[in-house]
Amino acid sequence: MAKQIIQVINPNTSQAMTETIAQAARAVVSPASEILAVSPSAGVASIEGHFDEAIAAVGVLEQIKAGREQGVCGHVIACFGDPGLLAARELARGPVVGIAEAAMHMASMVATRFSIVTTLPRTLIIARHLLRQYGFEHQCAALHAIDLPVLALEDGYGLARQKVREYCIQSKRQDGIGAVVLGCGGMATLARELTLELGIPIVDGVGAAVKMVESLLALGLTTSKHGDLAWPVAKSLSGPFSALN
Amino acid sequence: MAKQIIQVINPNTSQAMTETIAQAARAVVSPASEILAVSPSAGVASIEGHFDEAIAAVGVLEQIKAGREQGVCGHVIACFGDPGLLAARELARGPVVGIAEAAMHMASMVATRFSIVTTLPRTLIIARHLLRQYGFEHQCAALHAIDLPVLALEDGYGLARQKVREYCIQSKRQDGIGAVVLGCGGMATLARELTLELGIPIVDGVGAAVKMVESLLALGLTTSKHGDLAWPVAKSLSGPFSALN
Amino acid sequence: MAKQIIQVINPNTSQAMTETIAQAARAVVSPASEILAVSPSAGVASIEGHFDEAIAAVGVLEQIKAGREQGVCGHVIACFGDPGLLAARELARGPVVGIAEAAMHMASMVATRFSIVTTLPRTLIIARHLLRQYGFEHQCAALHAIDLPVLALEDGYGLARQKVREYCIQSKRQDGIGAVVLGCGGMATLARELTLELGIPIVDGVGAAVKMVESLLALGLTTSKHGDLAWPVAKSLSGPFSALN
Amino acid sequence: MAKQIIQVINPNTSQAMTETIAQAARAVVSPASEILAVSPSAGVASIEGHFDEAIAAVGVLEQIKAGREQGVCGHVIACFGDPGLLAARELARGPVVGIAEAAMHMASMVATRFSIVTTLPRTLIIARHLLRQYGFEHQCAALHAIDLPVLALEDGYGLARQKVREYCIQSKRQDGIGAVVLGCGGMATLARELTLELGIPIVDGVGAAVKMVESLLALGLTTSKHGDLAWPVAKSLSGPFSALN
Amino acid sequence: MAKQIIQVINPNTSQAMTETIAQAARAVVSPASEILAVSPSAGVASIEGHFDEAIAAVGVLEQIKAGREQGVCGHVIACFGDPGLLAARELARGPVVGIAEAAMHMASMVATRFSIVTTLPRTLIIARHLLRQYGFEHQCAALHAIDLPVLALEDGYGLARQKVREYCIQSKRQDGIGAVVLGCGGMATLARELTLELGIPIVDGVGAAVKMVESLLALGLTTSKHGDLAWPVAKSLSGPFSALN
Amino acid sequence: MAKQIIQVINPNTSQAMTETIAQAARAVVSPASEILAVSPSAGVASIEGHFDEAIAAVGVLEQIKAGREQGVCGHVIACFGDPGLLAARELARGPVVGIAEAAMHMASMVATRFSIVTTLPRTLIIARHLLRQYGFEHQCAALHAIDLPVLALEDGYGLARQKVREYCIQSKRQDGIGAVVLGCGGMATLARELTLELGIPIVDGVGAAVKMVESLLALGLTTSKHGDLAWPVAKSLSGPFSALN
Repeated sequence: MAKQIIQVINPNTSQAMTETIAQAARAVVSPASEILAVSPSAGVASIEGHFDEAIAAVGVLEQIKAGREQGVCGHVIACFGDPGLLAARELARGPVVGIAEAAMHMASMVATRFSIVTTLPRTLIIARHLLRQYGFEHQCAALHAIDLPVLALEDGYGLARQKVREYCIQSKRQDGIGAVVLGCGGMATLARELTLELGIPIVDGVGAAVKMVESLLALGLTTSKHGDLAWPVAKSLSGPFSALN
Repeated sequence: MAKQIIQVINPNTSQAMTETIAQAARAVVSPASEILAVSPSAGVASIEGHFDEAIAAVGVLEQIKAGREQGVCGHVIACFGDPGLLAARELARGPVVGIAEAAMHMASMVATRFSIVTTLPRTLIIARHLLRQYGFEHQCAALHAIDLPVLALEDGYGLARQKVREYCIQSKRQDGIGAVVLGCGGMATLARELTLELGIPIVDGVGAAVKMVESLLALGLTTSKHGDLAWPVAKSLSGPFSALN
Repeated sequence: MAKQIIQVINPNTSQAMTETIAQAARAVVSPASEILAVSPSAGVASIEGHFDEAIAAVGVLEQIKAGREQGVCGHVIACFGDPGLLAARELARGPVVGIAEAAMHMASMVATRFSIVTTLPRTLIIARHLLRQYGFEHQCAALHAIDLPVLALEDGYGLARQKVREYCIQSKRQDGIGAVVLGCGGMATLARELTLELGIPIVDGVGAAVKMVESLLALGLTTSKHGDLAWPVAKSLSGPFSALN
Repeated sequence: MAKQIIQVINPNTSQAMTETIAQAARAVVSPASEILAVSPSAGVASIEGHFDEAIAAVGVLEQIKAGREQGVCGHVIACFGDPGLLAARELARGPVVGIAEAAMHMASMVATRFSIVTTLPRTLIIARHLLRQYGFEHQCAALHAIDLPVLALEDGYGLARQKVREYCIQSKRQDGIGAVVLGCGGMATLARELTLELGIPIVDGVGAAVKMVESLLALGLTTSKHGDLAWPVAKSLSGPFSALN
Repeated sequence: MAKQIIQVINPNTSQAMTETIAQAARAVVSPASEILAVSPSAGVASIEGHFDEAIAAVGVLEQIKAGREQGVCGHVIACFGDPGLLAARELARGPVVGIAEAAMHMASMVATRFSIVTTLPRTLIIARHLLRQYGFEHQCAALHAIDLPVLALEDGYGLARQKVREYCIQSKRQDGIGAVVLGCGGMATLARELTLELGIPIVDGVGAAVKMVESLLALGLTTSKHGDLAWPVAKSLSGPFSALN
Repeated sequence: MAKQIIQVINPNTSQAMTETIAQAARAVVSPASEILAVSPSAGVASIEGHFDEAIAAVGVLEQIKAGREQGVCGHVIACFGDPGLLAARELARGPVVGIAEAAMHMASMVATRFSIVTTLPRTLIIARHLLRQYGFEHQCAALHAIDLPVLALEDGYGLARQKVREYCIQSKRQDGIGAVVLGCGGMATLARELTLELGIPIVDGVGAAVKMVESLLALGLTTSKHGDLAWPVAKSLSGPFSALN
């Protein structure tokens, strides 16, 4: 039987990160599904602020459209800010899940409170806004930034990965939490080993989102086309956006 | 390979409802898992208020302990009030998911706002409290009660099931929502047909919780034993509770 | 004239703690009332988590029923997690007040913000959830745990009591608060001496709840039997719960 | 033994309303206490908006000071907007309780949700702000105004009192609540008869506040003078305020 | 003296709407300032959902950059969803104000509660999310949609404008509010006449945002470049986004 | 053309502070407006708590009435607690803006989060309550008190002003914020120099409120007289308040 395809969209253009994300997705996908890891044809090499997110959102939409046309069954937006999430839901037929929301939902089911460890301090505000938007504010005890850029997670030196580990250890010791959410798609492959080492759930959103999409598909649930997330009102898109028509 | 067992606990003592719940769980479980549907050895025949919930919680704990000793991998609490959820997490090794939380989490990923349709008006307050506790208050547009007792869903006449359908239709038309959450384990088998008929996601928590447990297991995540949900502090349980020692 | 009886339920089975609670209740009760201090026939010796609370809730219900049959006028649930509170209200004719809610309400009337001092760190989450449920989140500045088990308050060595005192002093100095809420029924007899020593209100929930019940009775107010807290829907309780029929 | 005096301050200058309030207070006060009902020497005849409240607050302070000098043990502010409450606490030695807060606290202990019935629509905003400030927003299902001025409650015709009754009946039928809070000191004497007639708690804040003050006194708790509610910083008050020096 | 230029960005590509917006902006700008009304070189002709917003956000950024290079002093984003607002702030030297936030801020200063009248029902969710994000949820009494597309406001028939008027009238009568916020940049020129006709503040965000930008400039305040809104981290933008480098 | 007069009310009776406030207001007012700086004929010399605020509110109302009779176009209440704000709006024809709200609104438009620096610790609670009332709680990262009385800002020694500067520097370094709100009218003239020195927006409410009033006037918006803020219900004011008739 043909496998159902789950499209995992890395919203930035870094191939190394797309690989990391694909690897994390494939590590958890069920035998009935297949991961299609993609990234936008153009955009930013990493996402470290609202400006980067706004650019990346268009790339996400381009990929959602492409995925839909290729017949993928569901979509994951693999950047911790969930860029373009609601727009993507308007454009998609299948379910669309962001890695931030997936990680937060999952964390809230294995612990009463969690902390978040992310990259640059300036991305903390994005996590804060999502916590408020999704309703998890009261379940997040603390937010930490390792103060290294996103791509340091892929630089081969391992410093960033070491700092993630240190912040998780410190968070376990000091924050009064039961789980840690990793706040960047580039940290995805760290979750399992840190979970084992620290003995508490270290939650990666990439895996969480893949399983969430598979779950929704198994339940016969998909993005509601009634109301707020209905197909975009048809209108002519001009210029560089014409590919989205 | 031996399948992993997911224990689905009907917190009330109605065998008909245990069957309904088992059927809904088996309809969505993946090939790698097996459903073990159980109910407490003693308690209440249906759960329609806080008193019933308090009784049922002890039955849930009894079953969690039994399941743990039998080597089940995860647990579902299949009553919309999620009775005994945090207590069960203390007692369990694997993940424990309630059907109310699972349904709310899932609904929030396919629609911006949802409504809830439940049984007796007096159970609405339980749903309200869970919305607040879980952080979904701002995503729930309305709560409706069909004003029939829980067991009417199993009485063979179909009136209760017909009223659920009517409230879902009305909710779609009037509430400005994109999805409806079914607020009782006994409604579980209705979700798929109503989703097809109404063309919007009608979310059943039993299936949602089964997939959530499977997802957590696939991710290597389980109830955190660090902090708030650590094993209960050892102490001698007397009288009818001694079975929980 | 016969005195009205106020039943003070210690939800755990520790006789020493029942005595402590009874003493605190009798110290404040008005001449028109009499305290009947009781504890469940079976259950846990102390309450230090959600599991313990779930067990204790059944014992609370057993005592509520017994109290109602004996003609008591109102009930106090004397454990800081207010275990079984809403279930107890369904089962009771008279008013039922938990010591956590009573203490929080009282503290909010003598100070703009308060702190809580409790026993084990794992019970902090219970206080957090109650603050949210009752609406006092924004009035609680900090939560502290002395990191000793509940029964250390009764062990005759006084270490636990000394630590409560130290945390109250530190809270006064550092938290920017005007009052401290004692987060355990076993601390009840400390309130008055600490209030005098520290010169700020140190609020014990046992006394607060007794006065709240007396107040409701004097006002002719009792648990509403209209709607959410109506009598439990009649159903046969099986096994060890049959005493609750 | 000399009785402890509880000062009940009607913040407006209507003698009829002071009488109504005094009557409600005396109906519930315990034998150990005595009610001293007072009203400001100058101000507004009724309080129906923020302007009236600002004026009344000064009268409340004048009376708090007078009461303190007379040795009263505690104070009630008997207007549903709780005008000048925090200022009064700064000025008082004993506890100060407002009737809105007292009624809301009490209602939250006998029902899961309540409605409010008040006088003019423009006073609803005052109740809304207090609900938010005190943390009861999620426990208030609806607010109703009878659309008659405050003094209509004292006019001898009974129309206003009849409308209060009708709104309470309608609220019971439609709001999904278990209790009603009367939103004006002038409605105080209605509570007991409506409670009996309707069979649900109809909560009057005057009685509630008197009992709350008595409770605080019995517990040895009084307004915290540490921090936010410390004595006003000494400074010379000029003009008409010099009486407050 | 050279006037300071305030750039008013219509995020959609409709020239008619740019004109309407420019007109509203010019009607209120002070003599010291000059309005530069612009729209993106490519994008969508109207903004009626999250997808449209994501596209429009890139056009907003393109114009922010162009404006900055031309030396404009401040920027207005003239679409009620405030698309790209935080991204624009990262990219801008001067202040950036969205019309939704400006209108909500202004409305909250002339009334205790307001309603919103917007175009299509599907855009209500965008307003809801902004209310939550900005903190005005408790000050918004109701949201209404005239159920006509954005461009109907410019079609010359006047039906849409008539429906806006009707909804404002109805909102004044029924919502218990003191002001109405117009939820679309295309309604900007209606505000003044409706304010006069209805006798309550009808708040247009375009004018409000222009004055807010002028105010910030006069106060010497501009977007903070310390922390969350610092310049975007330098990185190479590829493809159609290279113009944003 | 005659200039429009904006009345800036210093709610305390300190002439030095009225001068400071007037200076800050005049520094930002537009050529079309003129500042009329006033203070109450009687009251308190500085406002450092709820008691002081209650007194000052009456002085504010006296000045609002005087201003209205003199034909001023709008009013600023220049004390950070916004004393008497809603009462003043009932009494005013033109817009009335408090400096706390103005500063918070402005700060939220130039930074995602801000801190507040105020005078005595006991005034922090007033700022906290306003943050909650206005909806800015989640945008305020920290509150700091320099622990010197209000009038130290005017004592000529400069210690208080130096401490404000130090707290702003520390807040920039530690709070994770982008802007600081000055929490006292007496700090108004510090804002511009600190903004320049620190390179982040240091927001003074006096200037902010003046610009907000000018903005509202330019937009043709004034306090809604429909509903909650309608003229006070006519009633005879007795004694020292008769001047307010």
